[in-house]
Amino acid sequence: MTYQKESFENLIERMEAFLNEKKYVEARKNIIDLEPVDIAYIMESLPEDTIPVVFRLLPKELAAEVFVELDTDSQESLIKGFSRAELKEVIDELYLDDAVDIIEEMPANVVKRILATADPDTRRDINNILQYPEDSTGSIMTTEYIDLKSHLTVQDALKKVRRVGQDMETINVMYVVDKDRHLLGYVSIRTLLLAEEDQTMAEIMDDTIISASTLDDQEETARKFEKYDFLTMPVVDKENRLVGIVTIDDALDVLMEETTEDIEKMAAITPTYKTYLNTGIFETVKSRIPWLLLLMVSATFTGQIISSFEDALAAVTVLNAYIPMLMDTGGNCGSQASVTVIRGISLNEITIKDLFKVIWKEMRVAVIVGCILAACNFVKLMLVDKLLFHNPITLTVALVICLTLIFTVFAAKLVGCALPILAKTLGFDPAVMASPFITTIVDAISLLIYFQFAKFLLHL
Amino acid sequence: MTYQKESFENLIERMEAFLNEKKYVEARKNIIDLEPVDIAYIMESLPEDTIPVVFRLLPKELAAEVFVELDTDSQESLIKGFSRAELKEVIDELYLDDAVDIIEEMPANVVKRILATADPDTRRDINNILQYPEDSTGSIMTTEYIDLKSHLTVQDALKKVRRVGQDMETINVMYVVDKDRHLLGYVSIRTLLLAEEDQTMAEIMDDTIISASTLDDQEETARKFEKYDFLTMPVVDKENRLVGIVTIDDALDVLMEETTEDIEKMAAITPTYKTYLNTGIFETVKSRIPWLLLLMVSATFTGQIISSFEDALAAVTVLNAYIPMLMDTGGNCGSQASVTVIRGISLNEITIKDLFKVIWKEMRVAVIVGCILAACNFVKLMLVDKLLFHNPITLTVALVICLTLIFTVFAAKLVGCALPILAKTLGFDPAVMASPFITTIVDAISLLIYFQFAKFLLHL
Repeated sequence: MTYQKESFENLIERMEAFLNEKKYVEARKNIIDLEPVDIAYIMESLPEDTIPVVFRLLPKELAAEVFVELDTDSQESLIKGFSRAELKEVIDELYLDDAVDIIEEMPANVVKRILATADPDTRRDINNILQYPEDSTGSIMTTEYIDLKSHLTVQDALKKVRRVGQDMETINVMYVVDKDRHLLGYVSIRTLLLAEEDQTMAEIMDDTIISASTLDDQEETARKFEKYDFLTMPVVDKENRLVGIVTIDDALDVLMEETTEDIEKMAAITPTYKTYLNTGIFETVKSRIPWLLLLMVSATFTGQIISSFEDALAAVTVLNAYIPMLMDTGGNCGSQASVTVIRGISLNEITIKDLFKVIWKEMRVAVIVGCILAACNFVKLMLVDKLLFHNPITLTVALVICLTLIFTVFAAKLVGCALPILAKTLGFDPAVMASPFITTIVDAISLLIYFQFAKFLLHL
Repeated sequence: MTYQKESFENLIERMEAFLNEKKYVEARKNIIDLEPVDIAYIMESLPEDTIPVVFRLLPKELAAEVFVELDTDSQESLIKGFSRAELKEVIDELYLDDAVDIIEEMPANVVKRILATADPDTRRDINNILQYPEDSTGSIMTTEYIDLKSHLTVQDALKKVRRVGQDMETINVMYVVDKDRHLLGYVSIRTLLLAEEDQTMAEIMDDTIISASTLDDQEETARKFEKYDFLTMPVVDKENRLVGIVTIDDALDVLMEETTEDIEKMAAITPTYKTYLNTGIFETVKSRIPWLLLLMVSATFTGQIISSFEDALAAVTVLNAYIPMLMDTGGNCGSQASVTVIRGISLNEITIKDLFKVIWKEMRVAVIVGCILAACNFVKLMLVDKLLFHNPITLTVALVICLTLIFTVFAAKLVGCALPILAKTLGFDPAVMASPFITTIVDAISLLIYFQFAKFLLHL
């Protein structure tokens, strides 16, 4: 089959018609060859009461895969409608880490029902993973991997792969352990296939092994996938005993989630971990209000600075007109520096020891940027604002504005690059030190510089 | 060996000592068990003239892997120092897509030398991939994959895997083609191992196959890895003939690169595709200056608005002090909305057809946020600014400020959420519509609202 490349809108309409006319065989035929994530999308685009109907049309294994891709609300209402046998069938088909992800989102009574239905082994494994802290590597690992004892021969290892491989999340990499389950090395399926039948795992394994601990931060572990190009990574306990593996699909989800979180923090939003359209109005308000309030109140400083120079502004009223330009340019320069540095920190390209290298670089950039901006602005002031708009701009006023620009850019770049690194050093989240926060500080600095130059050069 | 978990600083010092004392065996022993990316890091931390020395200590295959991880400058200087035989050895060991990545960064004379050294087959493949446009899927694919004819039996397929598997980038998934190389389906190594020896590929393959075209945007292809949890994806030409595969490590690099690019654009920076510390001063200036200039000149509008209300401001000077607060709060509200929507668009969670849903949501959020901020601000104005700081604030002035706040927040959220989606609809990059751009627009809007309320309520 060629995979449907256009959008699914026509298919959704067709499906609705089939379901209305109870043409279930037709409905089934139309979606059964799609990827699970796309079937889930189609189901959620159909009227809500048809979701269980479509779900029951799917073969057992596919149904479980689709279930994982549904959103939490659909999952919950499906579970509530399941018979005990149906629920057991779905739970048994799920990969363990997916089951845990689903359980973490469900209300307590649903969780109880799921755990009561699962077989005792699965229940024990689920409970085991559930006990790890939310952002830990343990919470994203799975216990469905193949481990091989070091004395096993290639022939026996291949037999084991054939026997248990079907139920494992991956067989691309297998881990070699001693009799106490201590992690010794790894063997890829390629190595296994290319080796001689009577070689042992100890002989063919690669013992250069990078592992994560169950309590390691999940982002740290996910970054290692990016750095080392891993497909899977073993997870060990404090005694270096193998307890699970993390696969790249879960690492990728973590990376994307953490990036979204960083971006939200940079825009002064408290992360919600939900997609935009799935977040309720009040939840959105709650994630945005605290920072807005804090920043609004901080603007008291800028207000007070302006108030205290009221007389100077009244004397040379044209100075007023350039306050927004100076504040915005300062804010933009500051956020350019801070956002670049914050991204560098989260990609591990910039560390605390680079502080002075970063500051030295930003200082030089700031001088060049400041001078270019000041020069362009000077030309604009004299040609456009003075000649075209007839604003009362003297040479001295232009000088005050342009000098302020140079110093503001310098201060903004310095504050913008240094604050995120200092935040990191003190154990705070650098992403919070982005544009809005920097803007508030730079606003105050630029006004102070402006009024000092005005007082000095215009003798106010 | 347990993998070194602390930082590599001690090791680098030790290596320097070994190299100074020409203890090459010791030096080799200390790094040979590390991951290639870490060896590259250590080499680049050592004095520059020792890089070729350390490189020659490494066994052939590891040397090639380390070479890939070095930065462009080190690669170039190594190539220049290589004998023809050494260069050939490295090029032959490289995976094809890595070789192409390196060639793309090298100056013309070095490229010529590399191509002259490579064997004819490799040269043809490299030239083939080099012809694809920079951001296309063709440019990140590799041609080192295993393809299996559909009539092949499992036994023969496994023989082929054993024969050619060593040189392929991955054997986790293999692709099934007909005699004209049309893509028919895929077979995972797991399916192959679990199948009966005499089954054919046509029988065991999965024909629900999602492929990319050579000319598809690389970001679009990389997003499919995220959505469908792929490890590899086939790339076909216009006639659906298999021409290469993309592997998840390259897709992950694309995702990270595109995210950094988005973040840079949101902060009004032209992306440079280099790490922060590797970008030169002038390159950094060049990536930052255009937007700063544009935004600075746009601030002319806000300046003109203030100038035209100069008399009103002179009459009630206290109004001046609240301009920064109003502008900043508007800017922050706008960037919260725009950044959330931009991220949603790049994660494919928000599409053009969601425009009205998004606007409706932001309108409701804006009303609630606006009212909360206005209420808090009113209290602050009357208690802190009036009673504590003795600012001359009347009830009417407070009303002007608070009403402006509500309307500014509303306008900011509306502009902030709608502009990125409209940009996307018109084929522009939504990321450019982030904070700095929105701020400039919202500044003007908030000033206009402010002065209209002031004129009306204060009878100016």
